[in-house]
Amino acid sequence: MKEFDFLKIISEKLTDSSLIGDDCAYLEDFDLFITQDTLVENVHFSLYTTSPYLLGRKSVSVNLSDLAAALAAPKFITVSLSVPSHINNDFVSELYRGINDVCNQYGVKVAGGDITGSDNVIISITAIGKRQSLFFASRKYAKKGDLIVVTGNFGKSAAGLYALSEFLYCEEDIISSHVNPHPRISEANKIANLTDCDIAVTDTSDGLADSLYKIAVSSKHSLRIDFDKVPVSQNVIDFANRNNIDYKNFVKWGGEDYELLFCMPENLYSKLNTNEFICIGEVQNKDNSPSVIIEYANSHERITQEIFEAKTFNHFK
Amino acid sequence: MKEFDFLKIISEKLTDSSLIGDDCAYLEDFDLFITQDTLVENVHFSLYTTSPYLLGRKSVSVNLSDLAAALAAPKFITVSLSVPSHINNDFVSELYRGINDVCNQYGVKVAGGDITGSDNVIISITAIGKRQSLFFASRKYAKKGDLIVVTGNFGKSAAGLYALSEFLYCEEDIISSHVNPHPRISEANKIANLTDCDIAVTDTSDGLADSLYKIAVSSKHSLRIDFDKVPVSQNVIDFANRNNIDYKNFVKWGGEDYELLFCMPENLYSKLNTNEFICIGEVQNKDNSPSVIIEYANSHERITQEIFEAKTFNHFK
Repeated sequence: MKEFDFLKIISEKLTDSSLIGDDCAYLEDFDLFITQDTLVENVHFSLYTTSPYLLGRKSVSVNLSDLAAALAAPKFITVSLSVPSHINNDFVSELYRGINDVCNQYGVKVAGGDITGSDNVIISITAIGKRQSLFFASRKYAKKGDLIVVTGNFGKSAAGLYALSEFLYCEEDIISSHVNPHPRISEANKIANLTDCDIAVTDTSDGLADSLYKIAVSSKHSLRIDFDKVPVSQNVIDFANRNNIDYKNFVKWGGEDYELLFCMPENLYSKLNTNEFICIGEVQNKDNSPSVIIEYANSHERITQEIFEAKTFNHFK
Repeated sequence: MKEFDFLKIISEKLTDSSLIGDDCAYLEDFDLFITQDTLVENVHFSLYTTSPYLLGRKSVSVNLSDLAAALAAPKFITVSLSVPSHINNDFVSELYRGINDVCNQYGVKVAGGDITGSDNVIISITAIGKRQSLFFASRKYAKKGDLIVVTGNFGKSAAGLYALSEFLYCEEDIISSHVNPHPRISEANKIANLTDCDIAVTDTSDGLADSLYKIAVSSKHSLRIDFDKVPVSQNVIDFANRNNIDYKNFVKWGGEDYELLFCMPENLYSKLNTNEFICIGEVQNKDNSPSVIIEYANSHERITQEIFEAKTFNHFK
């Protein structure tokens, strides 16, 4: 778990690490939210399984998803692009067409950046968003009795990645959800307008179980979900069955779905459209060794620190 | 000149490219300046010629230098670090010690970022600064009669890079200026407090001649400097002579000195300490084919588009 070691070292080395920890940081001096995410070729994407246009779109979308998790409205991005010498003008042109299309869709402006050489393609984007609510979103705000609510289905992006990597047939919507995810900007906007208290929010970029466990740790509460309530596309179940895979692994541990996951009080949930916002469980008691309990029809599973560390994807391998 | 092709394509692809072009972008909605710069291993630095501590320092300093060129006061950075699997905890710890030291020196807070795997070390930093003046700084603001003013000497960093790459002896201050440059924050602050008009400013990260030529093009004015007035360290001249190099090439075309270069009216210059701010020339007439004239004791040289394109360093080779 090198990533956790590194994050611990970074927090220790900084004189002030108070702005580190959530998907975005809130800068009070400027009343804004900021986030930076980097996509590295052969770690986060392969040029064999996406197009420059879709890569441009996704590199913006994943950053806007972090702003959505802070209930912020996206306003500006800066783009730092590093490319090897074999990359030509058409690649850059298509990549920026994708960046521009997502920016136009959400009213975002590109405010500079740079372009440099490198051994492989790297896109590092910083996104800035405007505060939309008097209340704040952070993993630490989950509290006993909160409902656990998600904005869409899980496992699709991981199934898409698996199909692309293993050259397997699957339905177009599965591939599309992997190579062209949509940030949940309008859903974040709705919650920002309705909430009357601070709530726990995260995007599920690292997977459902990962998101739940991180909220559990940050808030020091255990979380319980009913697996049967988690929305899953029938195409994902069919694809998994055809290839002798347990689809539940895509759903629980597959990343990059870019849904939002909230822990919110029942009175806020009661104001929402339950087709758009799906309740999958509840926040349990305060807990010094917090865990995530996943209930199935006839059994249950507990995600503890050991299981979390063994399961979560390691980019540094 | 792939970089210029790429920048042209990017401007064409964006629906709104009005925030692209200077060292920083000014975001009116938040009244702040923003810049992002990426350092790539084996393009911008080698782990054989610097330490992780100095690399951490430099990766922050080069971004603060861009804020200085906008006359902004640095406030926050985000840091995206990509490292190969062989990088250990000590490397990350030392890198962040360097980042933290520069941040503390200038009152800057780290506001998040990410850490991912990659084939080589890449550090992408976004820096945010506060406006300090009612007036703005941009290359386009150079006007006839402005004095061309610099904050320190030229050629040292390039000499340091040459010494490191070729394993040559040189004085410690030459190496230091390459591996540990200091952003001109206090000089920017002085100008921000004194100026009563918009002025042309850039940092000289890509070299003296490059900075002058870019101001000439952006402002559509030709610029003239007296080479003998450009401050040059005697150590650089001695190092060049010892190694049969024309030191003038380090001074004119060597990058990474991170001085500031201003075009400012004489009445502003008259308020400055001339040991700290050195006048090296003057902005000439408006010119549709702007150039830079460098005068020597008995000759002169004209930098035109062709010479500029042939001389400037190409990261994409």
